[in-house]
Amino acid sequence: MAIATAGGIALALWLAAAPGSPSVPLAMLAVFGTAKLLAELFERLNQPGIVGEILAGVIIGPSVLGWMAPNDFLRALADLGVLFLLFRVGLEVKASELLRIGGTALLVAILGVAVPFVLGWGILLAWGEPQIEAIFMGAAMVATSVGITAQVLASKGLLNHVASRMILAAAVIDDVLGLLVLALVSSVARGKVNVAGLALTALLALGFVFVVAKWGGRTVGQVVSRAHARLRVSEAYFALAMVVLFALAFLAEYVGVAAIVGAFLAGMALSETVDPRVEHLAQGVTELLVPFFLAGIGMHLDVKGFTDPSVLLLALAILAAAIFAKLVGCGLGAWKLGFRNMLRVGLGMMPRGEVGMVVAQIGLSMGVIAPHIYGVAVFMAVATTLLAPPLLRLVYRDVVPEAEREVVRLG
Amino acid sequence: MAIATAGGIALALWLAAAPGSPSVPLAMLAVFGTAKLLAELFERLNQPGIVGEILAGVIIGPSVLGWMAPNDFLRALADLGVLFLLFRVGLEVKASELLRIGGTALLVAILGVAVPFVLGWGILLAWGEPQIEAIFMGAAMVATSVGITAQVLASKGLLNHVASRMILAAAVIDDVLGLLVLALVSSVARGKVNVAGLALTALLALGFVFVVAKWGGRTVGQVVSRAHARLRVSEAYFALAMVVLFALAFLAEYVGVAAIVGAFLAGMALSETVDPRVEHLAQGVTELLVPFFLAGIGMHLDVKGFTDPSVLLLALAILAAAIFAKLVGCGLGAWKLGFRNMLRVGLGMMPRGEVGMVVAQIGLSMGVIAPHIYGVAVFMAVATTLLAPPLLRLVYRDVVPEAEREVVRLG
Repeated sequence: MAIATAGGIALALWLAAAPGSPSVPLAMLAVFGTAKLLAELFERLNQPGIVGEILAGVIIGPSVLGWMAPNDFLRALADLGVLFLLFRVGLEVKASELLRIGGTALLVAILGVAVPFVLGWGILLAWGEPQIEAIFMGAAMVATSVGITAQVLASKGLLNHVASRMILAAAVIDDVLGLLVLALVSSVARGKVNVAGLALTALLALGFVFVVAKWGGRTVGQVVSRAHARLRVSEAYFALAMVVLFALAFLAEYVGVAAIVGAFLAGMALSETVDPRVEHLAQGVTELLVPFFLAGIGMHLDVKGFTDPSVLLLALAILAAAIFAKLVGCGLGAWKLGFRNMLRVGLGMMPRGEVGMVVAQIGLSMGVIAPHIYGVAVFMAVATTLLAPPLLRLVYRDVVPEAEREVVRLG
Repeated sequence: MAIATAGGIALALWLAAAPGSPSVPLAMLAVFGTAKLLAELFERLNQPGIVGEILAGVIIGPSVLGWMAPNDFLRALADLGVLFLLFRVGLEVKASELLRIGGTALLVAILGVAVPFVLGWGILLAWGEPQIEAIFMGAAMVATSVGITAQVLASKGLLNHVASRMILAAAVIDDVLGLLVLALVSSVARGKVNVAGLALTALLALGFVFVVAKWGGRTVGQVVSRAHARLRVSEAYFALAMVVLFALAFLAEYVGVAAIVGAFLAGMALSETVDPRVEHLAQGVTELLVPFFLAGIGMHLDVKGFTDPSVLLLALAILAAAIFAKLVGCGLGAWKLGFRNMLRVGLGMMPRGEVGMVVAQIGLSMGVIAPHIYGVAVFMAVATTLLAPPLLRLVYRDVVPEAEREVVRLG
């Protein structure tokens, strides 16, 4: 009792010292610890650990325990985590190989946008929801959260499989198309559509991606190698790589695509010249922060709205449509690769994750969609994300992973 | 122009997507990039890079360019950065060696608290400031920001020198004493002093530090090794180390000492059993986040208040006293180690950094110190921190650093 009081005094003092900001170690412990605990549990059940990490967010979030809600600190760590995740994926991918399959990837992306949009929009209209809510649900179903798929494929050493490359290339194009759909939908909601502005945004975004993918590797490689030879600061190569990462992520954001596209391009640009030590240091950041990205997705789910059976039914219908639409849309786009690869590409593009939730949040903050429709969109985004890892494992089970590079393990 | 407009639309959309939160990549680029640029500049001028990183915060902060002000996101990254910094330092230190010099370290810490407090308090009283402001200035001068010294010593491979060990041991005790001074001062400001509560807090804090330092290594080592052998999750050793780090940091906070003391104890507890791979992964996080800690210190400085010559004069007097007090106080405590080591210990305990600023902030938020006194305390904290690295380099210049461990470089 007396000790508890003394602890209480100390705690009160601490809280006074950092007004408004909760304990950083406690937040780190709660999210990281729970994510790894659930990951371990899932691995023991022979399920993908990544699913456990997303569920950890559901459990400590408002749906179950209510320990934490998404806040600025956790969001920032999640944003950083997915940046590093895509950076690491980019490091293992050659730009030339993605550019070569650009045509097919474009088809995968376009069909993967069109089919989900039409299905989502159609289902909500058939359900008797207003036009604008139907349009936003369609837009939320267009999204692709490539981070989840990339994490699964990277952890299994499958990033250089033909279907995996198709997923990565299509996901980058999908992000540009998704930006356009979102811009169009927001314009419709505001009541004025600026076609010239949208076309320019599209051109700028596509131009940025193409230029960096095509010439970024040579330019960045040369600049970084020369600069590195002249720098005296410690860990200069790592510092340079981080500057390239943050600069391209910011530029991507600035031209309108997601920061993770820039991070992925930064990784690709550095993939042929980078020092293995940089990969290891970046890996440390990835290991620490990716659980915040994964748990952060789960934390957004709030099942309290699902007491109304008709909402639950709508959620399940939308979920089924979301899975079916990407399988059919992206699958058909990749018909040249054969049936198994069509399945792989379709499932790889399925998780909507944080991207789908951002679309729904914009609709909510513009006041054009009702909270229960927002809840359905978040459910769809989280559920597609949870289902992707086990299904991907299933359709990739007969692929032999490439030999782990010798540099990956050390010490 | 047209392109700028399209970019503007895209940017507006992006900002709508993340209401209230500024761009994470831009913030990362601004702080990390500027810090590394200034570090490089300082290395070329044959000065410590760490000073450049702190000055980067001064330059992009409100004092000069006004690009950024301290915010929750940057503060969280800085807090994490200094946690990882002290964790890494702990990994290189054996607890038994610190416990052996505990007696002398206690003397160093006590004199290093008493002399600065009396000097700071005396100068402000002599200046005609009120009693309570004098007491708070004394308390701010008591603080020790061991992170700065640790970073300098670690980067030069000097952590196991006898003076370095004395600094680390004394800094941990200093933190406990600093907590007591702060608690006492806050109680005085509130008008009621709870002696029993304070004694219990002290006992709890000292007990925690002693128990973890004495038996933590054996316990943690055994638990972690056993758990590691049974875990299936990827990078299990790293995950376990992170859980130990965050748990001890939180416990430290809970019993009333700084989270970094817990991080240091976690590192020490793991130092004898840890896998080198864990060190490398943690090193990546440290490299990324320590610039945020360093620049964050500089960012708090706001020189706008120093247009009044009498305030500037007071600031310089306090700065001189802050340097002199730790040199004499801590130096005398370490007289057994000889003159050169007395200098090293005194200078190593000199930086007040973030700890001194927290004390001043509490005074400001309680409304018991005036803004100009707060400004003087922050100036003292930043200036002692900027001066420490070059002076430490000077007094350690004749010490041959221990050979770098072979595992540190790889690839």
